[in-house]
Amino acid sequence: MRIAGQVSIDDIPKVCPLVSRAANPQYGERGTRVVVVAGVRFGGERPVVIGGPCAVESHGQTVGLAHAVKRAGADMLRGGAYKPRTSPHDFQGSGLEGLCILSVARQETGLPIVTEVMDPRMVGEVARVADMLQVGSRNMHNYALLAEVGRAGKPILLKRGMSASLCEWLGAAEYIAKQGNLDIVLCERGIRGFPSGEYSRYVLDLNVIPAAKMLTFLPVVVDPSHATGVSAMVEPASRAALEMGSHGLLIEVADLVFGEPKCDGLQAIDSATLGRIVSFAREKQAVSSQESGVRSTEGIQPTPALNATVA
Amino acid sequence: MRIAGQVSIDDIPKVCPLVSRAANPQYGERGTRVVVVAGVRFGGERPVVIGGPCAVESHGQTVGLAHAVKRAGADMLRGGAYKPRTSPHDFQGSGLEGLCILSVARQETGLPIVTEVMDPRMVGEVARVADMLQVGSRNMHNYALLAEVGRAGKPILLKRGMSASLCEWLGAAEYIAKQGNLDIVLCERGIRGFPSGEYSRYVLDLNVIPAAKMLTFLPVVVDPSHATGVSAMVEPASRAALEMGSHGLLIEVADLVFGEPKCDGLQAIDSATLGRIVSFAREKQAVSSQESGVRSTEGIQPTPALNATVA
Amino acid sequence: MRIAGQVSIDDIPKVCPLVSRAANPQYGERGTRVVVVAGVRFGGERPVVIGGPCAVESHGQTVGLAHAVKRAGADMLRGGAYKPRTSPHDFQGSGLEGLCILSVARQETGLPIVTEVMDPRMVGEVARVADMLQVGSRNMHNYALLAEVGRAGKPILLKRGMSASLCEWLGAAEYIAKQGNLDIVLCERGIRGFPSGEYSRYVLDLNVIPAAKMLTFLPVVVDPSHATGVSAMVEPASRAALEMGSHGLLIEVADLVFGEPKCDGLQAIDSATLGRIVSFAREKQAVSSQESGVRSTEGIQPTPALNATVA
Amino acid sequence: MRIAGQVSIDDIPKVCPLVSRAANPQYGERGTRVVVVAGVRFGGERPVVIGGPCAVESHGQTVGLAHAVKRAGADMLRGGAYKPRTSPHDFQGSGLEGLCILSVARQETGLPIVTEVMDPRMVGEVARVADMLQVGSRNMHNYALLAEVGRAGKPILLKRGMSASLCEWLGAAEYIAKQGNLDIVLCERGIRGFPSGEYSRYVLDLNVIPAAKMLTFLPVVVDPSHATGVSAMVEPASRAALEMGSHGLLIEVADLVFGEPKCDGLQAIDSATLGRIVSFAREKQAVSSQESGVRSTEGIQPTPALNATVA
Repeated sequence: MRIAGQVSIDDIPKVCPLVSRAANPQYGERGTRVVVVAGVRFGGERPVVIGGPCAVESHGQTVGLAHAVKRAGADMLRGGAYKPRTSPHDFQGSGLEGLCILSVARQETGLPIVTEVMDPRMVGEVARVADMLQVGSRNMHNYALLAEVGRAGKPILLKRGMSASLCEWLGAAEYIAKQGNLDIVLCERGIRGFPSGEYSRYVLDLNVIPAAKMLTFLPVVVDPSHATGVSAMVEPASRAALEMGSHGLLIEVADLVFGEPKCDGLQAIDSATLGRIVSFAREKQAVSSQESGVRSTEGIQPTPALNATVA
Repeated sequence: MRIAGQVSIDDIPKVCPLVSRAANPQYGERGTRVVVVAGVRFGGERPVVIGGPCAVESHGQTVGLAHAVKRAGADMLRGGAYKPRTSPHDFQGSGLEGLCILSVARQETGLPIVTEVMDPRMVGEVARVADMLQVGSRNMHNYALLAEVGRAGKPILLKRGMSASLCEWLGAAEYIAKQGNLDIVLCERGIRGFPSGEYSRYVLDLNVIPAAKMLTFLPVVVDPSHATGVSAMVEPASRAALEMGSHGLLIEVADLVFGEPKCDGLQAIDSATLGRIVSFAREKQAVSSQESGVRSTEGIQPTPALNATVA
Repeated sequence: MRIAGQVSIDDIPKVCPLVSRAANPQYGERGTRVVVVAGVRFGGERPVVIGGPCAVESHGQTVGLAHAVKRAGADMLRGGAYKPRTSPHDFQGSGLEGLCILSVARQETGLPIVTEVMDPRMVGEVARVADMLQVGSRNMHNYALLAEVGRAGKPILLKRGMSASLCEWLGAAEYIAKQGNLDIVLCERGIRGFPSGEYSRYVLDLNVIPAAKMLTFLPVVVDPSHATGVSAMVEPASRAALEMGSHGLLIEVADLVFGEPKCDGLQAIDSATLGRIVSFAREKQAVSSQESGVRSTEGIQPTPALNATVA
Repeated sequence: MRIAGQVSIDDIPKVCPLVSRAANPQYGERGTRVVVVAGVRFGGERPVVIGGPCAVESHGQTVGLAHAVKRAGADMLRGGAYKPRTSPHDFQGSGLEGLCILSVARQETGLPIVTEVMDPRMVGEVARVADMLQVGSRNMHNYALLAEVGRAGKPILLKRGMSASLCEWLGAAEYIAKQGNLDIVLCERGIRGFPSGEYSRYVLDLNVIPAAKMLTFLPVVVDPSHATGVSAMVEPASRAALEMGSHGLLIEVADLVFGEPKCDGLQAIDSATLGRIVSFAREKQAVSSQESGVRSTEGIQPTPALNATVA
């Protein structure tokens, strides 16, 4: 019996020649491409911690949280100005106003900003403000958007589709890479499985971290907030992700002093907890840098294939 | 333990006031909104059968297949000019040229055309040719696209995301409806589960058909080609779908006289098999119309809520 | 990357030499082994319909329902004397008394009986009453039980484990066959997937029916009651299963005149609905027998390998 | 729409009054029942590490590995004398001879032994040798076996069924507890999901660890060997499991000096790697004991309900 549409990880070098490790021997067996976002180095010597609100709701809330995130020691600020919601009647984000607020938050704190873009026509607008563009889980297969963000000249945070195979996820990265942009950071954020909704929002799939690192040289981070959906699980899940080899964390933060969040409040942690996670990430860095001996790959030249595409 | 982001089918009237059956009592317990596409009636007295190639590859192939599909008795022609593929290096469809070919195929056969659009910036272009716009499984959560097709003035075929809950699927329909367009046909096309890839491409989820019919008044059809991925399963799956209450079928057809398909050939059936499926659908119609007594709902007025949105 | 424990359907001839079609060429490409249970022929000319209560609760309820099932035209009676329940504090079935009641029901109606056995030490006891022994979904991997029922001299109804691959399911059948018993009927009863519990109890996986028929010569039936968990879906799911090629149906029935069922009442249909399903199965038989031309395989000799095992 | 058979974690106090935390307030919000196995304390101050071969194959292999496991610093020895295999024609374990070998390994090394039992009729035999009885994933729903091991007077390692909900898993523990035995250690070993087989054997579901600890007072450990199926993932998965709150680890070990394992060799680690995992577990202990302040619960009296059952 032969089945249409089957691809396996053995097909990755052919499906994804630009982002596959096997097709890019200059990275060796363990080298990671360092993706630099306004000085923050994904895949470098230490894990990157990104914190911030689910959605940008107001100036006070976002700038206030940005300061708290900074004080907690995190490297970057997250926050959605455009929010993909199940219902069109729910709060859809604050849009352009939200982008302005993010811009202010960066000025005040110096933290680089990652924010989601959902519409290929908005990529330019969002890229003017953001240091890093996020493609969300629901848009991982949105090839028009992937091509557009690939041309935006900004690093990309590419979330895994909630039922995407590893091969499909790397295929999505390949769409970005094909536009000449290899500054891609992968983000596992939980997958849909039979337990989704029983005791956690999604199933945190940490096995995909070492698997992705074997099959691509791109850095991989984890979003423990969506992957669990339960604030009490975010701290242990963050530690677990780092032990599994994640190059960083993307975490939703809400301090009640800035009001109850309009979305996903049940998965937000406070900035004190974020601070403990940052400390863990810093200790981990010290240990892993002396242990692993994985060489930095900054300065590695992209493949001729990519150059050809870019030229 | 409380988990973020949980919605259940009990939330549907609130999440989807425009497409929920409970929120639109004028449809009663079993009434279906008839969606008319160039004279073809989805949700009417008889199941609709749509056949055609996976991708529009050439004039000869597509027009030839269109004639074969017409001879087989089908109601509409399908065919992709834009194809979402796992790898950006694979055949991406024939684009504008493909749209022209589809236009010719309609002129020659009189069959209305449904074709996929993936980019909100292309909706106008595609809508000039297509009688019905298809939103594919990978774009079900692409809210920018959903809003754009909702404004295009054409009926929409909305495929279920491969891991979308029923609530999320209806939420996607609500995004279209919110633009004033209730001419939406839902399409189950197989979901991702642990057996995906062992003996079929996806898991054909027929339980969702009666469930969707209880929760919305929109017509629901089935794509047995992607749901099985195995050509030998398409005919029995088509019959099964109709018995489960599907209002129609969307089927990939390839006659070898027109060459080996460039994509998904393993799930295509020949036009002779399509002819048998059409015959089954016609017999089924005769039986069900005398049995069920479900009233047609053409002429039912949309809810004030929708009118308000449209106005 | 190599992963432990991987088997695919290509391994089936090696994993399951006794029940694999490829390893038993005497069945050809489409022949089915007819399994005869007290005159009822699974895999023969017409689909078999089995109806009855979820659990044997009392003499009145079971014998009453048995008469109703008989009047509806069904071929066999189902009913559990031993019930696997999530909580040990729930009703566990009526045990030996239940077996006696089933025995009376058969005497009064002449319907052969299938009932579940869960403990290898009870196989003899249950086999004295039952015409066919059921191994439930939760025990599909219970190899001690499979071996014991394989030696009991009775045909076996082997339900698919709720997350069993096709290969594992046939492997379970092979455990029975290895004891010299090839009178095995497979039963698909729904699998666990992300939608389980949203709008149906399990995901009815009809794709597995044609797949199983390609890979084994054993008959395959469907349990639409557990696969849907919603009584209103049982009739359409029954018709769909037959159209997909199922050799029969196993259905839970409850007429309110005999009281509210102690378990799974929400998925039970009344005997009038059962009657309509039986009529559909009878019509289907007439059509399929003239169409398919699949030869009966009664009288086909088992493979030497099996004889060796039996001897 | 109402669906049969639905239980949620809110039902756990009712479904599982003996093992539910909410139904046993003497454990408080964070107390764990310490399960003592020949001096090894599950749920106590430090994580327990169990190592050993997948299957007991020979005296030399098992005793040799037992010494290596002891040298690596592990607390207990694992090894299967009875192996559940997909095919009945594969190696099924060495049976009684294997039990003897395990007995020798304990004598020589002093390590307590956990080994699987699959047949209720063999429980006595296995319990004479084993310090702890393992119920495997495939038998989690085997209620006859659960009751029998509950009466054996030995602590139980209860693996989660590969598609069991948390509620079903605790329900299985309740079957054991109902026999008067609360010495139960839960073991997460990976669940079946769409990625199973693409890059790992199962999906390691670490979210279930904190969830289980909220809902029951029983200790929970993780089997990273089956959960990944890839030896290179076992060490990071072990660390991740401990960070997520696991009370211990169950790991397959194979040193090539003792020959290639007959089963699941691809997921075995060598004893040097086991040694590193043990070191990590010891450091973790030091940190967590000063941080968490979770009180030991040894000496806590079982509930009256349980006493009633036992009496």
